[in-house]
Amino acid sequence: MSEVRVIQINESIFAENDRAAELIRKKLTKQGTLFLNVMSSPGSGKTTTLVALINRLKDRLTIGEMDVDIESSLDAQRVADRTGIRSLQIHNGGLCHIDADMTARALLEYDTEGLDLLILENIGNLVCPAEFDTGAHRNVTILSVPEGDDKPLKYPLMYTVSDVVLINKMDALDYFDFDLDKAKERILKLNPNAVFFPISAKTGEGLDAVCGWILRELDTLRAGNG
Amino acid sequence: MSEVRVIQINESIFAENDRAAELIRKKLTKQGTLFLNVMSSPGSGKTTTLVALINRLKDRLTIGEMDVDIESSLDAQRVADRTGIRSLQIHNGGLCHIDADMTARALLEYDTEGLDLLILENIGNLVCPAEFDTGAHRNVTILSVPEGDDKPLKYPLMYTVSDVVLINKMDALDYFDFDLDKAKERILKLNPNAVFFPISAKTGEGLDAVCGWILRELDTLRAGNG
Repeated sequence: MSEVRVIQINESIFAENDRAAELIRKKLTKQGTLFLNVMSSPGSGKTTTLVALINRLKDRLTIGEMDVDIESSLDAQRVADRTGIRSLQIHNGGLCHIDADMTARALLEYDTEGLDLLILENIGNLVCPAEFDTGAHRNVTILSVPEGDDKPLKYPLMYTVSDVVLINKMDALDYFDFDLDKAKERILKLNPNAVFFPISAKTGEGLDAVCGWILRELDTLRAGNG
Repeated sequence: MSEVRVIQINESIFAENDRAAELIRKKLTKQGTLFLNVMSSPGSGKTTTLVALINRLKDRLTIGEMDVDIESSLDAQRVADRTGIRSLQIHNGGLCHIDADMTARALLEYDTEGLDLLILENIGNLVCPAEFDTGAHRNVTILSVPEGDDKPLKYPLMYTVSDVVLINKMDALDYFDFDLDKAKERILKLNPNAVFFPISAKTGEGLDAVCGWILRELDTLRAGNG
C-alpha cells in the first residue's frame, strides 16, 4: 500500500504558490513591466496570435516572451524567428502547467529589466494552468472557434481566472457550429468582469483592439506606480 | 516550508497504476469486452465522433460508455441522448486525467457484463491522460485538423502511447494549414505501429473504416480467449 495519492495538490501548495506569485508581480510592477499569462487548449493559435500581436507592438514597446512546453522548443523559436524579439523556451519536463516557482526560476535566466511587456505562453491545457497563479498581472485565455462554445461549461476554472478571452479563428465562424453570444454568456457567468476580443490571428481581425487593451493596461500599471 | 512538491508522480505510483490497469484489462478480456480509451485536446470532437461511431455499431454490438469531466455531465448526457446507450459520467474533481484506480471505482458502479465494447471518453487534455494506463485494450487519440500538424512534436507522450489516431475534421482540411503526411510522419516517429484513420465526424467520412477496425479488434480479443 502506498500512502501517496495520484496527485497531491493541497492548500499549503497553493498558499506557497500564491506568495511566490505575489513576489513576481510586485517586482514586475515596480519596474513597470506588464506581465501577461496566455493560456488555451493545444492548437487554439497561441503562438500565431502572440507573433501577430508582438509584431504590431514591437516598435512601441520593448517586449519579452517565454514559452512553456514539455520538451520541444518550437514555439520560442517561432516567436524569435517571426518577431525578432528575445524569447526563452521553458521545458517543464512533462508537467501540465507552470507555477510561480518555475516562473521565478525562469526569471533568474531571463532579464526583464527594461521590458515594457513580458508575455508567458503557457502550455496548451485547459485544466492545470488555471490552478496556478504565475505572478502575471493578467490572465489571457484564447478560445478558438473550432473548439466549440461549450468549453466554458467543461473547463470552468480556466474561464473563472481569465481576465481577457480572445475568441480566435473568427474567420472560420461560418464553418463551425459556434455561437459567440452563448460562449460569452457562459464565460460571464463564471467571471462577470471578463473582457472579450473576437480575433483572427490569420487575417488580423480584432488584433488592433487587443493591442489597445495591452497599452491601456500598461498605462494603468505605471500610473499606479507613480 | 512544505515538504510536498507541486506534483508528486513517482515510479511507485505508475507501478501501482499499471498493476490496477492490468487487473481491469484481464477482467474485461476474460468477459470478451473490448475496452477503448479515447483521448484528445479539448474541442477535437471526441463526443461527436463517439456518438457517430456508436450509432453505426449499436445494432451489431452491445456498447457501454463512460465520460470523464471535471464537474459537468454534458458529454455523458449527449452520448445517452443521441445514441440511446447507457452512459456514465465520471467527475474527477478537477484532476487532469483518470487513472486505473478511478476507472476501477467507476466499474464498480457500471456493470460491464455482457458488453461487447466499452468506451472511455477521457478528459480533454494532451498531457496528463497519456501518463496513466486506464486498463484499456487500446488507446485511441483524436487529432483535429484545426489544431495543427505540429501537435505530435509538442505532446510526444500522447502519440507514443496511442495505438490509433483519428485525424478528425477532415472536411475542414482546405481551410486550415494542416499537412496530413507530416502529421502521420511525426506520429510514426513516436510510434511506428500507429494506425491512422482520416475522418470527419460531421460528414461521416472514414467512420466505417474505424468501425471495421473496432470489429476486427474485438474478434482478435475473443480469438485470444478461445
